[in-house]
Amino acid sequence: MAWSDRRILDLFGIALPIVQAPMANFSTPEMAIGASRAGGLGSLPCASLNADQIRAAVTAIRAAAPGPINLNFFCHTPPAEDAAREAAWRKKLEPYYREAGLDPAATIPSVSRLPFDDAACALVEELLPEVVSFHFGLPDPTLVARVKAAGAKVIASATTLAEARWLDARGCDAVIAMGVEAGGHRGNFLDHDMARQVGTFALVPQIADAVRAPVIAAGGIADGRGIAAALALGASAVQIGTAYLFSPEAKVSAIHARALAAVTDDGTEVTNVFTGRPARGIVTRLMRELGPMSPDAPAFPNASRALAPIKAKAEANGMGDFSNLWSGQAARLAKHLPAQELTSSLAEEALARIAALPG
Amino acid sequence: MAWSDRRILDLFGIALPIVQAPMANFSTPEMAIGASRAGGLGSLPCASLNADQIRAAVTAIRAAAPGPINLNFFCHTPPAEDAAREAAWRKKLEPYYREAGLDPAATIPSVSRLPFDDAACALVEELLPEVVSFHFGLPDPTLVARVKAAGAKVIASATTLAEARWLDARGCDAVIAMGVEAGGHRGNFLDHDMARQVGTFALVPQIADAVRAPVIAAGGIADGRGIAAALALGASAVQIGTAYLFSPEAKVSAIHARALAAVTDDGTEVTNVFTGRPARGIVTRLMRELGPMSPDAPAFPNASRALAPIKAKAEANGMGDFSNLWSGQAARLAKHLPAQELTSSLAEEALARIAALPG
Repeated sequence: MAWSDRRILDLFGIALPIVQAPMANFSTPEMAIGASRAGGLGSLPCASLNADQIRAAVTAIRAAAPGPINLNFFCHTPPAEDAAREAAWRKKLEPYYREAGLDPAATIPSVSRLPFDDAACALVEELLPEVVSFHFGLPDPTLVARVKAAGAKVIASATTLAEARWLDARGCDAVIAMGVEAGGHRGNFLDHDMARQVGTFALVPQIADAVRAPVIAAGGIADGRGIAAALALGASAVQIGTAYLFSPEAKVSAIHARALAAVTDDGTEVTNVFTGRPARGIVTRLMRELGPMSPDAPAFPNASRALAPIKAKAEANGMGDFSNLWSGQAARLAKHLPAQELTSSLAEEALARIAALPG
Repeated sequence: MAWSDRRILDLFGIALPIVQAPMANFSTPEMAIGASRAGGLGSLPCASLNADQIRAAVTAIRAAAPGPINLNFFCHTPPAEDAAREAAWRKKLEPYYREAGLDPAATIPSVSRLPFDDAACALVEELLPEVVSFHFGLPDPTLVARVKAAGAKVIASATTLAEARWLDARGCDAVIAMGVEAGGHRGNFLDHDMARQVGTFALVPQIADAVRAPVIAAGGIADGRGIAAALALGASAVQIGTAYLFSPEAKVSAIHARALAAVTDDGTEVTNVFTGRPARGIVTRLMRELGPMSPDAPAFPNASRALAPIKAKAEANGMGDFSNLWSGQAARLAKHLPAQELTSSLAEEALARIAALPG
């Protein structure tokens, strides 16, 4: 048996149409190594790493897996300081500070999620990843051109057809069609109304019909059936995140792992209370009480700043009340397998599923 | 080529794994005849019809198509009179009354969407449909038993795994897994938080894994790729609604037809402003200004009552500002074909799509 659609396989030089999703703070170099060794595309999320950490991770992956590497970056516009909004958010969180015995007036270090910039681009030019993926749109066209000139294929997430067309028109080599089922940060950058986000089932074929680039389906895919279905809908490959959170290579807290093991299909919501941008996670107390979408949350990534002390205190007490427990809607389908074995078995399951269909 | 999963085909006695969705006010007997003649399951929505209308429709369908018939009923609990809520809703709508030159204090006839009751059950016992489908849960167990004793297979919609298990435990012969992409009224009856509704891609395999009954996938399916994908995910058949709204047999207004022809993937939202229950429709002025979800909307179906005069006035002027323009998220995939040809071509496309997959 062989994959009949080779567009993504040939584009990246991989054997299986599976991209291990870059999950900032949760993916590890070891996860990328496992996915890559199996024949998928291993990904390293760079948004929370500094240049030396990225260098070290790429060196580790290169040493252990011969396949291509995907470096992932965020493309948000860092927000201007907004002291009034910050103060209002602190005020909202004050009862939780008091409950935790913390000083609501304490100084809190700022958080940084650096967007892709000149320095990050220079790092790409130094490290020469085969693929660079972007979330929240694309960086400045001159930076995109530099990434391409460095030999990397450029891919990015679209949550609507309009976003897919926008990416396609700007030369993306592949478009990730990210359905509303997906865990973690939504990739939306043109459409910000969460009530209008589109399910994977409807999104993939509409994007496949409209763009020149091959499509990578994401959202709700956690087993071989999902891969088979995504290919049927017109995708050339899939990106899988949540299922990899169940691998031993994932950097998930015990609290997060317990929540993932217990979550139901309807146990997640898209919320902005953790970072200021909408992201799908397992419903926690903070989401129930202030969200899921709060107009008071400071712009990304600043919502997380005032939250950090109460989150840390709760986690120290074994509670995830204030933790961002990212998960997609298909977590229940995931198995506890090492990343390499998971990647191989997903591909085998997909081919077996397709073989069992009529015809 | 043949359908490898025969559970639904054998259950209903149909040739193609396609259920034409019963769409109250929009489906017609002619639509059911077309779907049935092609080998699918033709459905008649009964929620807006009286007994004589249902009798006449069944007679017409029986005369024109030899296949089984699906009669569809709503299972909501009619709300108690709530004068305060009604008055508050009238107050909300008052500016629209004034803008339209209508008297906000005028008497408005009440609306009736009768739930499945003893009289409806007697009608089932008289007309002997092969299938009875329910939306918003199931009726009283004694009524379900009478429907089954009359020889009908009983099916119902689930929007979450918990709802699917509930239906399965109560003896449903098949479960409709209705993903969030679907147009029209959500079938939810245990879970009312719209932020937690599940996409088709994640919902179908989780339900298929958990219930004894075969699964009919619904939501975002409008072409052969969607049917192939639904089967890959574990469904034994699909239910398709929006695509049939493009057939000449559909009873859609010119306003609705124009909106359907132009709607984008992200052009719909789930709203309760039209009837009091959440339903997916094309975004209109009323949804933008009072919704999409309004705590002020009276319970189903009473929200539609005070809305009726301004809706009628706007429609008379060619405007859909206050109209419930139901649509799923995959309307762009639909073709303008008669119901019989549509049903046949959907099945052919699905088989062709499956044949093109790897292996």
